[in-house]
Amino acid sequence: MEEENATPEVQERVRASFERQGLMAHLGARLSHIGPGRVHIVLPSRPEVTQQHGYFHAGATSAIADSAGGYAAFTLFPEDASVLTVEYKVNLLAPAQGEHIEAVGQVLRSGRTLTICQLEVFAIQGTTRSLVAAGQQTLICLHDRPDH
Amino acid sequence: MEEENATPEVQERVRASFERQGLMAHLGARLSHIGPGRVHIVLPSRPEVTQQHGYFHAGATSAIADSAGGYAAFTLFPEDASVLTVEYKVNLLAPAQGEHIEAVGQVLRSGRTLTICQLEVFAIQGTTRSLVAAGQQTLICLHDRPDH
Amino acid sequence: MEEENATPEVQERVRASFERQGLMAHLGARLSHIGPGRVHIVLPSRPEVTQQHGYFHAGATSAIADSAGGYAAFTLFPEDASVLTVEYKVNLLAPAQGEHIEAVGQVLRSGRTLTICQLEVFAIQGTTRSLVAAGQQTLICLHDRPDH
Amino acid sequence: MEEENATPEVQERVRASFERQGLMAHLGARLSHIGPGRVHIVLPSRPEVTQQHGYFHAGATSAIADSAGGYAAFTLFPEDASVLTVEYKVNLLAPAQGEHIEAVGQVLRSGRTLTICQLEVFAIQGTTRSLVAAGQQTLICLHDRPDH
Repeated sequence: MEEENATPEVQERVRASFERQGLMAHLGARLSHIGPGRVHIVLPSRPEVTQQHGYFHAGATSAIADSAGGYAAFTLFPEDASVLTVEYKVNLLAPAQGEHIEAVGQVLRSGRTLTICQLEVFAIQGTTRSLVAAGQQTLICLHDRPDH
Repeated sequence: MEEENATPEVQERVRASFERQGLMAHLGARLSHIGPGRVHIVLPSRPEVTQQHGYFHAGATSAIADSAGGYAAFTLFPEDASVLTVEYKVNLLAPAQGEHIEAVGQVLRSGRTLTICQLEVFAIQGTTRSLVAAGQQTLICLHDRPDH
Repeated sequence: MEEENATPEVQERVRASFERQGLMAHLGARLSHIGPGRVHIVLPSRPEVTQQHGYFHAGATSAIADSAGGYAAFTLFPEDASVLTVEYKVNLLAPAQGEHIEAVGQVLRSGRTLTICQLEVFAIQGTTRSLVAAGQQTLICLHDRPDH
Repeated sequence: MEEENATPEVQERVRASFERQGLMAHLGARLSHIGPGRVHIVLPSRPEVTQQHGYFHAGATSAIADSAGGYAAFTLFPEDASVLTVEYKVNLLAPAQGEHIEAVGQVLRSGRTLTICQLEVFAIQGTTRSLVAAGQQTLICLHDRPDH
């Protein structure tokens, strides 16, 4: 399946903001797709992102899920607005192990003030892609508050 | 207020498990209190844990909240058990900024299979301590599955 | 779209349990579909289920969502087990108004102890069907504890 | 402990709104305390609010928790505003049984647009009061939209 891309301007705004997130670089995460209302973030496996049994830490899993949802919302915002997470909830469905995990943030409902996103995280091992976390997130649009 | 400490054996089990969490060391987090059913984790401010506006990233905030709750539950488990996060929900109440943040995980209800924790994260700036995140977490006790 | 039905035995177990839920009858809710891992519940509009502005009350919306998810899980349980809700989270996406609302509970992951469901509630007005609530739920299977 | 009451005007606004909630009357729920940022709602035990094992239905438990939190937020709103639930999450900690249950909604953080509440539900049997549900809720203040 070919996924639709956001406009070059929107992609550029998302990338510029993502690069200002110190945590994403520190974890080793990168943007893998920027569509309208939909953003993917990939995190490769490394000892620096594990919990005590060697799986991806729930905190790492949900950090990329939170950013994926936040930027999914952000793609639909006006140019001079920024985004903040109000809250999110995530279920860890299975131990997250594999070569990398990929978070998918998808806008469920977009309003002037609040946006609701669905969050999914998949673990990829070879050709196997399995759902390891699922959640839901509420974001707020701060108008007239450019992101940078 | 003097907080009660867990027994030396329990403290040792928590510390040993915490040290196996690659993510906690990578973020720069450390255990600041281990009591029965209550664990604190501190994360100092540094560019590696920020979001795009320079505040602590919601992912970093909730990573230490998740570990604090997980270990709070773990302090009440039998010796040969390990802990997994089933799910959690967190509200980001205010932008998290300061010298460091401290997550407090507190057991609300402890059952044979499931434990429910309350999660709080405070931002500390000089002598000011303000609540920046609050949440709730469900954990599962895996019996006869030692943590190491 | 034709939806798959559960076996007659499973449908019978779900219906018998649903009829023991005093709240569902009191609200005026009824089962509209019982499939393997998927259950729908309909609630007609009436003054007895409203909030202060005349919309469906969030409590009514989430009551049928909770039961739909619970029975979706239950369809996959062994015969002598019963189901309890551990927790759920629901976003109210839009004011719920219409002739009736329909909750859809769908199993996302089914384990021996825990089951995770996706919850959706739609408002139906004439030929329009709009998503008014979305959530996620954790349920526990109590083995050797028949439901009745 | 004596609990502080809201002003007579605020109490009157809450009572008038509560009386317009068809669901609360239909369940048999009543307001038991209206303080600034804190509201209690009581629901007596009756077959009409049960789940299949005879306990209070999670939907009834969370319906009064949702209203308690909503009105707790509402006590702090300007006179011409109304309240909507954005989302909530609730853990069912123990089977809810007893003569009645009481929901306590308490504002954790009050902002111009969003308010976050802590939700607790207790079951009361004779002189025993036990926590049966705990949750967290996000509400939105609709300015210049009187509640009636």
